[in-house]
Amino acid sequence: MRFAEMTAPEIRGIDRDRAVLVAPIAACEQHSGHLPVITDAVLVGAVADGLEAARPDRVLLLPVQWLGASEHHLPFGGTLTATLPTYEQMLIEILTPPLRDGFRRVLLLNGHGGNIDPLHVALRRLDAAFPDAVLTGAAYWELAAGEIAALCEGPRKSMGHACEIETSMMMHLRPDLVREDRIRDDPSPGVAPEGLFHAVDFGRRTERGAVGYPSYASAEKGGKMLEAIVPKVVEAADRVLEMPVG
Amino acid sequence: MRFAEMTAPEIRGIDRDRAVLVAPIAACEQHSGHLPVITDAVLVGAVADGLEAARPDRVLLLPVQWLGASEHHLPFGGTLTATLPTYEQMLIEILTPPLRDGFRRVLLLNGHGGNIDPLHVALRRLDAAFPDAVLTGAAYWELAAGEIAALCEGPRKSMGHACEIETSMMMHLRPDLVREDRIRDDPSPGVAPEGLFHAVDFGRRTERGAVGYPSYASAEKGGKMLEAIVPKVVEAADRVLEMPVG
Amino acid sequence: MRFAEMTAPEIRGIDRDRAVLVAPIAACEQHSGHLPVITDAVLVGAVADGLEAARPDRVLLLPVQWLGASEHHLPFGGTLTATLPTYEQMLIEILTPPLRDGFRRVLLLNGHGGNIDPLHVALRRLDAAFPDAVLTGAAYWELAAGEIAALCEGPRKSMGHACEIETSMMMHLRPDLVREDRIRDDPSPGVAPEGLFHAVDFGRRTERGAVGYPSYASAEKGGKMLEAIVPKVVEAADRVLEMPVG
Amino acid sequence: MRFAEMTAPEIRGIDRDRAVLVAPIAACEQHSGHLPVITDAVLVGAVADGLEAARPDRVLLLPVQWLGASEHHLPFGGTLTATLPTYEQMLIEILTPPLRDGFRRVLLLNGHGGNIDPLHVALRRLDAAFPDAVLTGAAYWELAAGEIAALCEGPRKSMGHACEIETSMMMHLRPDLVREDRIRDDPSPGVAPEGLFHAVDFGRRTERGAVGYPSYASAEKGGKMLEAIVPKVVEAADRVLEMPVG
Amino acid sequence: MRFAEMTAPEIRGIDRDRAVLVAPIAACEQHSGHLPVITDAVLVGAVADGLEAARPDRVLLLPVQWLGASEHHLPFGGTLTATLPTYEQMLIEILTPPLRDGFRRVLLLNGHGGNIDPLHVALRRLDAAFPDAVLTGAAYWELAAGEIAALCEGPRKSMGHACEIETSMMMHLRPDLVREDRIRDDPSPGVAPEGLFHAVDFGRRTERGAVGYPSYASAEKGGKMLEAIVPKVVEAADRVLEMPVG
Amino acid sequence: MRFAEMTAPEIRGIDRDRAVLVAPIAACEQHSGHLPVITDAVLVGAVADGLEAARPDRVLLLPVQWLGASEHHLPFGGTLTATLPTYEQMLIEILTPPLRDGFRRVLLLNGHGGNIDPLHVALRRLDAAFPDAVLTGAAYWELAAGEIAALCEGPRKSMGHACEIETSMMMHLRPDLVREDRIRDDPSPGVAPEGLFHAVDFGRRTERGAVGYPSYASAEKGGKMLEAIVPKVVEAADRVLEMPVG
Repeated sequence: MRFAEMTAPEIRGIDRDRAVLVAPIAACEQHSGHLPVITDAVLVGAVADGLEAARPDRVLLLPVQWLGASEHHLPFGGTLTATLPTYEQMLIEILTPPLRDGFRRVLLLNGHGGNIDPLHVALRRLDAAFPDAVLTGAAYWELAAGEIAALCEGPRKSMGHACEIETSMMMHLRPDLVREDRIRDDPSPGVAPEGLFHAVDFGRRTERGAVGYPSYASAEKGGKMLEAIVPKVVEAADRVLEMPVG
Repeated sequence: MRFAEMTAPEIRGIDRDRAVLVAPIAACEQHSGHLPVITDAVLVGAVADGLEAARPDRVLLLPVQWLGASEHHLPFGGTLTATLPTYEQMLIEILTPPLRDGFRRVLLLNGHGGNIDPLHVALRRLDAAFPDAVLTGAAYWELAAGEIAALCEGPRKSMGHACEIETSMMMHLRPDLVREDRIRDDPSPGVAPEGLFHAVDFGRRTERGAVGYPSYASAEKGGKMLEAIVPKVVEAADRVLEMPVG
Repeated sequence: MRFAEMTAPEIRGIDRDRAVLVAPIAACEQHSGHLPVITDAVLVGAVADGLEAARPDRVLLLPVQWLGASEHHLPFGGTLTATLPTYEQMLIEILTPPLRDGFRRVLLLNGHGGNIDPLHVALRRLDAAFPDAVLTGAAYWELAAGEIAALCEGPRKSMGHACEIETSMMMHLRPDLVREDRIRDDPSPGVAPEGLFHAVDFGRRTERGAVGYPSYASAEKGGKMLEAIVPKVVEAADRVLEMPVG
Repeated sequence: MRFAEMTAPEIRGIDRDRAVLVAPIAACEQHSGHLPVITDAVLVGAVADGLEAARPDRVLLLPVQWLGASEHHLPFGGTLTATLPTYEQMLIEILTPPLRDGFRRVLLLNGHGGNIDPLHVALRRLDAAFPDAVLTGAAYWELAAGEIAALCEGPRKSMGHACEIETSMMMHLRPDLVREDRIRDDPSPGVAPEGLFHAVDFGRRTERGAVGYPSYASAEKGGKMLEAIVPKVVEAADRVLEMPVG
Repeated sequence: MRFAEMTAPEIRGIDRDRAVLVAPIAACEQHSGHLPVITDAVLVGAVADGLEAARPDRVLLLPVQWLGASEHHLPFGGTLTATLPTYEQMLIEILTPPLRDGFRRVLLLNGHGGNIDPLHVALRRLDAAFPDAVLTGAAYWELAAGEIAALCEGPRKSMGHACEIETSMMMHLRPDLVREDRIRDDPSPGVAPEGLFHAVDFGRRTERGAVGYPSYASAEKGGKMLEAIVPKVVEAADRVLEMPVG
Repeated sequence: MRFAEMTAPEIRGIDRDRAVLVAPIAACEQHSGHLPVITDAVLVGAVADGLEAARPDRVLLLPVQWLGASEHHLPFGGTLTATLPTYEQMLIEILTPPLRDGFRRVLLLNGHGGNIDPLHVALRRLDAAFPDAVLTGAAYWELAAGEIAALCEGPRKSMGHACEIETSMMMHLRPDLVREDRIRDDPSPGVAPEGLFHAVDFGRRTERGAVGYPSYASAEKGGKMLEAIVPKVVEAADRVLEMPVG
């Protein structure tokens, strides 16, 4: 069920007890010299489409929100962003009307690392307001961390930025938008020790705006990654559908 | 130039003196029983695409923001919305990084009536922060009011909601999303006298969530309307490009 | 009924079903070289007094709020202002206690162009909180646009700023405050095309801080304008009194 | 110098080094059964006029702001109010443009007890933004506490609410607005011990909405009180004019 | 009863009708050259401990909040602070859960002059939300003003800053933290006339960051002061316990 | 260097280039039936003391802030909390004055799981304001995850709540505050799948307010844990001291 394409009476008619509201969130931000700034929205949109296709009568899919929390990418230009307080508030407000309308299960499906913190905060603030609802969120690459790692061929096995993973999937989904001749690895030095959070923008943290090894990317691998990611996201949505409400 | 599909270095390379940043804004809200809730985003997106196609090297087109100020549509369900203060803030924040990066001309291209007030407020607040920039905004149907009126065949000659105009253009652009069998006119009684603003939600103001006469709609007319609207929007963008900055 | 001059028990005794709360709002801002900064408050106060005199037992008139949304006048000095978010909030808070006390009909009677946007936003935000109330607002010159135009003799037929209309009415009401020797026309060039909103402060938009042709003003015409405006405002208030609540 | 009645060029021409900006603030709130709700604005306005008359070329007098912080009076109705955060913000915003325009001495002349706390907070917040300015505020009755006490004949010798002091001055200034037949004492029980602040609204704290003994009031005494108060306020303004800036 | 040291079930078991919640608040700010920046927290903590010891089964003592409203001390460094709006909000939020959990009597026990204004505002805002509760606050030195004055030997008889009073009590409580060789009087000139509030930071108001005569301090006197203060605070708490709720 | 115990001139004299500001943050919230609500502050305080003792001339230690983000613990009572937006703002404001005073390295040392999200957001917001500073944060148990796991004897090897780890350290540090007879395991069912964030308060998530197996706790093990944790925190602080600024 695609929220955007339905009419209001159709949405009003959905059985709240059997549905999970899936809200894909992304960003519109610099992705080094070879990927378009809309990359995160393309990728999370494809994952979300795969989920909806797998559970067409249980998933109510909202449109992808491309505006993310990307202030740390501003030094490279080509970046739109909300500040963190506004982004938290925006997530809360997007989810509030459906929660008031009786939807009880929410999955914020995240496609941008910078959104993780405000996603947590937004869901926690919503939990205080809607204690009866099941409020969840996940970055798709964290749900499929093992599957993704198994497919990586470069030195980095987890999601970076404009990296082997993102570049592969973009080559698979939108090869027209990838500047293959501009692909450069950006093996940003290991920054903080394990467990230490370091708030540092990409202008100081990276050389070209990427984190990882896009030179290892291929369209074929991108296709396999998507095929591996979607089932894990479906699994998570199934779990959300099973959790007790109220 | 499509912001979303460009890389950051490409965006950094744009000649600020020759470009106008066009930010299409819409809504995701109830559109009576026959139109999908994403209608406003489809329509303003088509208008924006027409503008970008006409001025490919002068217009820098942002992705359509589907989240609008739609609280007055909540009574019919099927509506996502930001509150008005958050919406004003979101518009300001979307435009701030490009303004800081040197863009000096902005056109907020609006596809939802409920966005007009916060659009004005957001641009006025930005004007206090960026007094050197040319900050403009317009609802596409106000730029082409005469052209649209000339094409209307029903009793109402100006933009309503899920009306002859919107329905015609959706029949032209996305016939798959129009429930033609559910089309019903909603000739909401003339409410306030000329010049009197009445803040009243659609649940009290309309019977089915529409304002106007969608029964007069046709795909052919929708095509003609778009053809009439785009040149007027191009004309407005040209004016913005001519206005002096600084 | 003049709120300010009544005691609390008298206000508590008003029949909520028969009364409309009228809140006049204005500004304290530069009005070119010939009008005092309090002009908007004087004018809307006179209009409001006329309304109250015409409907003494149906209109509950609040005192004129002279603080307006006037940031765009700051470049000329002599201007006090609230920021737009504060101004929206202030309007909401002024109206909230009477709405909680059972008043159901509100007319924000506006005397300053810069207040129109936040007036709309404030009433819309109040509508979400008080869906049973009739929440309206109007700039007096929009209610009487035809009548005013018919009386104008200069090239501009609608409200500008420190223009023929405002200057005439001030010459009628407070000739002691008009510096007639400083009257200068300020025929600011037609800025944006029809339908295009351009946020631009008066320092860039005008030469002397006015918009229009005060040289055409006369006290006699000012008196006629007031005589023409008040009945249109009374008509609007009557309509608000007829609208159904709840 | 009366800000409201001047033109912007005249205000721009004021010698910043020799002027103190005086901003009278009041309230529009219940004043028991015998005084109109605008009482505080009438009284502080009269005091401010006396000050301006005494120092016509050193005092720049803003118009009286009748909206105060009066939530604690809401239980009796007949009360308009800003919330405390909005009121603090409003005071800050009223004073900011003149401070940016070069005025360096401010006196917030207060006529409502409930405004004292937010007045302090607002001036402290402004002090962080304008460390070079002299930012002061005072309730007129605190500047003239001794003089007022000497004139009181009832058991209470300091400012209450709708008390001997306020009632006397209203009988002197606006006898037409005093309902003498409704005067009732309201000797609210001694509440908190010395030094203990008790936040409690007037609905629980008083019987009729007053604090004090209006039955002792007389117009003649009200005249004497005003005559005693103004010189003390002038003295304070003189001190503010002597304080070093920068 | 010490909130911090109790378990949640023990706190849930407290008889709400017989208890007063005491919340000590302080600051962490410059105290001239001889006192540590934590002085206010040490002092109000000692007073609070004395109160709790005197009424062990009626007082529920929260931990001392050392973060205060200290922006006016920033020029001397060594100062942590919340802005005033945040501080008001923090006080409100600290007290809200116990008030929701049924506690009906609150005493904010204040140990820092800069907290007085936001303490008042916070309690007033809480009073609007919890009209059934008894919401009080006091600076300990205002409850015991007479007793303290009687013990002062220097020219100043009331609380200053890093003065005879604070220095004496610190010499009594934490002599290890007092730099006796750095004690210098700071007889800041009498600033504003009686009744005039002057918002001015300590960098401009004082020479070394103190107000008063610490050279008169002694540990013995500090002990006597504490002995005199605690009974007055107990008396105030007793009064709060007697006040009617609901 | 203990900020609280120093004078302002001593703090002003610290060599900014060689110091890291360490701000310990905790909570005051329910810890099941056997631990006091102040547990998190006691534990992070002990860790912070160990760090300061190990690097006495490089670490500038702020006092422990006991107010945390604990809304999810409210259902069990005995909990004080800031809302998430206020908590983010409070962290930002605590760190801002030292950053303005020239400190360039910050370590927010966290002792409460609920603070992790707002800690991230606060540091990211500070990074936009202070791009030259090194802004870091860590929960102590994440810096020493391996060491802690090696010492755990119960089924859970990582930090829970009122668990084997916290209970052991409290038995070591403050045995007087542990109600050993009330110790009960609370093996909350594994909630969300790996990578799925579920915002759910402790009232629904746990039976007694704990997560883990406090029955395995011992004072001796608590001592060993602290001995293992401190060096890892010192290591992190050393890394922060080595990171380049500017």
